[in-house]
Amino acid sequence: MIATSATTARTALYPGTFDPLTFGHLDVMAQGGALFDRIVVAIGVHHGKEPWLSFDERAAVIRDACAGLGASCGFEVAGFDGLVVEAARQHGACAILRGLRDSADFDYEMQMAGMNGTLAPDIRTIFLPASPGLRHVSGTFVRQIAALGGDVSAFAPAAAVAALKRAIKRRGNT
Amino acid sequence: MIATSATTARTALYPGTFDPLTFGHLDVMAQGGALFDRIVVAIGVHHGKEPWLSFDERAAVIRDACAGLGASCGFEVAGFDGLVVEAARQHGACAILRGLRDSADFDYEMQMAGMNGTLAPDIRTIFLPASPGLRHVSGTFVRQIAALGGDVSAFAPAAAVAALKRAIKRRGNT
Amino acid sequence: MIATSATTARTALYPGTFDPLTFGHLDVMAQGGALFDRIVVAIGVHHGKEPWLSFDERAAVIRDACAGLGASCGFEVAGFDGLVVEAARQHGACAILRGLRDSADFDYEMQMAGMNGTLAPDIRTIFLPASPGLRHVSGTFVRQIAALGGDVSAFAPAAAVAALKRAIKRRGNT
Amino acid sequence: MIATSATTARTALYPGTFDPLTFGHLDVMAQGGALFDRIVVAIGVHHGKEPWLSFDERAAVIRDACAGLGASCGFEVAGFDGLVVEAARQHGACAILRGLRDSADFDYEMQMAGMNGTLAPDIRTIFLPASPGLRHVSGTFVRQIAALGGDVSAFAPAAAVAALKRAIKRRGNT
Amino acid sequence: MIATSATTARTALYPGTFDPLTFGHLDVMAQGGALFDRIVVAIGVHHGKEPWLSFDERAAVIRDACAGLGASCGFEVAGFDGLVVEAARQHGACAILRGLRDSADFDYEMQMAGMNGTLAPDIRTIFLPASPGLRHVSGTFVRQIAALGGDVSAFAPAAAVAALKRAIKRRGNT
Amino acid sequence: MIATSATTARTALYPGTFDPLTFGHLDVMAQGGALFDRIVVAIGVHHGKEPWLSFDERAAVIRDACAGLGASCGFEVAGFDGLVVEAARQHGACAILRGLRDSADFDYEMQMAGMNGTLAPDIRTIFLPASPGLRHVSGTFVRQIAALGGDVSAFAPAAAVAALKRAIKRRGNT
Repeated sequence: MIATSATTARTALYPGTFDPLTFGHLDVMAQGGALFDRIVVAIGVHHGKEPWLSFDERAAVIRDACAGLGASCGFEVAGFDGLVVEAARQHGACAILRGLRDSADFDYEMQMAGMNGTLAPDIRTIFLPASPGLRHVSGTFVRQIAALGGDVSAFAPAAAVAALKRAIKRRGNT
Repeated sequence: MIATSATTARTALYPGTFDPLTFGHLDVMAQGGALFDRIVVAIGVHHGKEPWLSFDERAAVIRDACAGLGASCGFEVAGFDGLVVEAARQHGACAILRGLRDSADFDYEMQMAGMNGTLAPDIRTIFLPASPGLRHVSGTFVRQIAALGGDVSAFAPAAAVAALKRAIKRRGNT
Repeated sequence: MIATSATTARTALYPGTFDPLTFGHLDVMAQGGALFDRIVVAIGVHHGKEPWLSFDERAAVIRDACAGLGASCGFEVAGFDGLVVEAARQHGACAILRGLRDSADFDYEMQMAGMNGTLAPDIRTIFLPASPGLRHVSGTFVRQIAALGGDVSAFAPAAAVAALKRAIKRRGNT
Repeated sequence: MIATSATTARTALYPGTFDPLTFGHLDVMAQGGALFDRIVVAIGVHHGKEPWLSFDERAAVIRDACAGLGASCGFEVAGFDGLVVEAARQHGACAILRGLRDSADFDYEMQMAGMNGTLAPDIRTIFLPASPGLRHVSGTFVRQIAALGGDVSAFAPAAAVAALKRAIKRRGNT
Repeated sequence: MIATSATTARTALYPGTFDPLTFGHLDVMAQGGALFDRIVVAIGVHHGKEPWLSFDERAAVIRDACAGLGASCGFEVAGFDGLVVEAARQHGACAILRGLRDSADFDYEMQMAGMNGTLAPDIRTIFLPASPGLRHVSGTFVRQIAALGGDVSAFAPAAAVAALKRAIKRRGNT
Repeated sequence: MIATSATTARTALYPGTFDPLTFGHLDVMAQGGALFDRIVVAIGVHHGKEPWLSFDERAAVIRDACAGLGASCGFEVAGFDGLVVEAARQHGACAILRGLRDSADFDYEMQMAGMNGTLAPDIRTIFLPASPGLRHVSGTFVRQIAALGGDVSAFAPAAAVAALKRAIKRRGNT
């Protein structure tokens, strides 16, 4: 994760909750990494949304996973609690990355892209198609399956699975 | 808003939460206004759903916006806390108006139209296509953006934006 | 089919190929008939599109079916070989009626409604939801099934089925 | 509901919340009954999901409805609080049945089928198309309509409607 | 491909053009093979549709591929030039199998299932979800890519690829 | 259109038929221009597809339109008659650009992206969301409307409209 000069480097923001990071997210990051010099993975930490994993846990999982993504693109992890377009501006990003799996994703993301494009016409939303073998991976289902004791190691990196297991244990204790 | 004779006037009900009114809603109202003599904008006030704006705030915003919609159709504002088909009957409406933006809207509205058509076969559901430049406007996102301090004046009339700002202030204080 | 005064009557255009009329089309006409004073069923007769039924056969089938639709709305049958918005203007229609069955219909019709709305902002496109029991009826499949000798009497009025059978016989002879 | 030998009988699991059973569910069961020797209707009783009807009420409604489904397939009712694929294995089912009404269903079910297929490659997910006249029936809307005093007897068997009415009365008292 | 007694065996028809067989088709056949005793792969040979591969070529490719599908289900290959429900009846099938990849498939197949269910209520249409890694495989694109000299061996079995290459050579010579 | 050094410049291919260029295409090009150093607009000239405009006419319209797109990105126009991934490689492009308007686009493009990703894993497909006011613009409808004498100047640049009119005149004469 070598920092590149902000003046020439093309930066994209990849916003999400990453609760936890899945292979679907990693697929988007790998695809984005081939197109941009620098990608800021931006973890949303908004009021009211109570995540299963803490910010630090989510950030650690993402950093760990980025190590395997190759050196041509610099990956950074950050948090944001405001508008996604403001986070993009703050990090000097010209683009927001979003993965698309199905029609439901598409409809939701078109609304968000349209509204964000009105708020900040200088920042583009880019959709990256989920790789065929990963179109079914859903963070919500990953959490549900793990909470019921199912094996989610086919859907998320080992560090994410471990962090999720710890989170489930904590939740069970409360 | 000139009252028209109930016996000859063609009336449509336009139900929603209008929390707050957006330019998307106004687009549906303008389109509907060209087809009906009288449109009752029916604000749903059901148990359990806690709106951001009070009924009076929402009604005032809608009334204010109707003033700019031309005189060929009479617009009225009402509340309803029961079935939408009962509200339609109560107001002498032969049709229920719904705007469509995308496939997700379509699937949801087809279920509702099918079930309402079974409950009240004499009342038709009419879908009006969102105007191209307004297909991305979502009330949920308008509230989210405004709550994060974003400028939503491109998505809703000034009175709605002002009322939403007041509501956000109130919510922040609690 | 009593003619109503053009000055006060609310007219809608229902364009299509009607090759042949199905119960899906009739459903749209019945729904539209409850909302308008006059509906012009406009048969498209454009170059390049070779229909199975002649214009006269299609018009006769539609006229026959309209007889059963009740007297509160006047139904007329016409042909058009130009733009649908021009046909609407020519017949004094303020609205174009289109039935919606599924997402594929929705996507196609949104494009057409958007483009027609640009060409003629004074004419509205209205979508009517297919009744639940008729969402699967497709004119293309009706023709295919009939051509293979299948019984299509569950999908189209008797006069349409008879005309389609004659058309298939003609096509077989050539 | 004659028990069939587990060694030769083809068993399918039909999981859901059935809160309450609708004619849409019954349609899936009738279709599945023509394909399998034994169908286990599996009521999900997971933590956090508070149903309107108790497990016993839901089970009684389903058992009552199964009586009318013909004798060629044996129907059983069970509960499950873990993974659906584990419930399928436990009951010796080679397939999971799911009904499809629209694109939204399809997107959701493709995710679930993909993830379940990864967890248990030996268990197949089978989609059954909702019958045309039942594509609009939604359990969520059935509850909403009944809670507002509407007549839902067109959407669910009489026993389900009665149980739902009792549940609504209980909820109103609390 | 051991023939099973028609009286007890559960048979499904899998209709298509198979021009040529792809890994997507094979996925449906493998899934279906786990559910039925006997699957008749029915190649449509209707007037007007000019295939790239001859019937014999397509049948040979399918037979070759079935050899790898395991012995618990008997696979047969047949042609049909009439209605799919008639082919199902003729072969004693209680079900028609169709694979689903996306919303476009879903909309098309729901129409066909609805119409076939009207023509033959005793025959069920079953949808099988395409396996995640095969949702993008399209026979049309396979033909287009092969015709432009692209390598399609990732999308179809070797025998299908070879037959397709021969077909392309023939087409180029005419 | 200043040529940039191939070694450092990030290049994208934007393939299509552009028969003719519409404001929808221009929107994709403008969005892509903010993300890449060089965009090759690649006109497909495949056997069997008979365009309305000649290659030279289409290229001239695109070149004319690029002049208004700003200087930060170099736009080039090229033809291709083979696989799109080969055209991308030939021009040193790391990405293929595609615009998305609706679910039908999405389904089609996911298939194409999936198959192209298999053929050439080093080349990424990027989806750009159509701007809200342009989601309804369809090249097919533009040609149909123009052929019927309609005014398409709201959907395509003046040079495209003029070229289309000439093409329609030619077609009418034959």
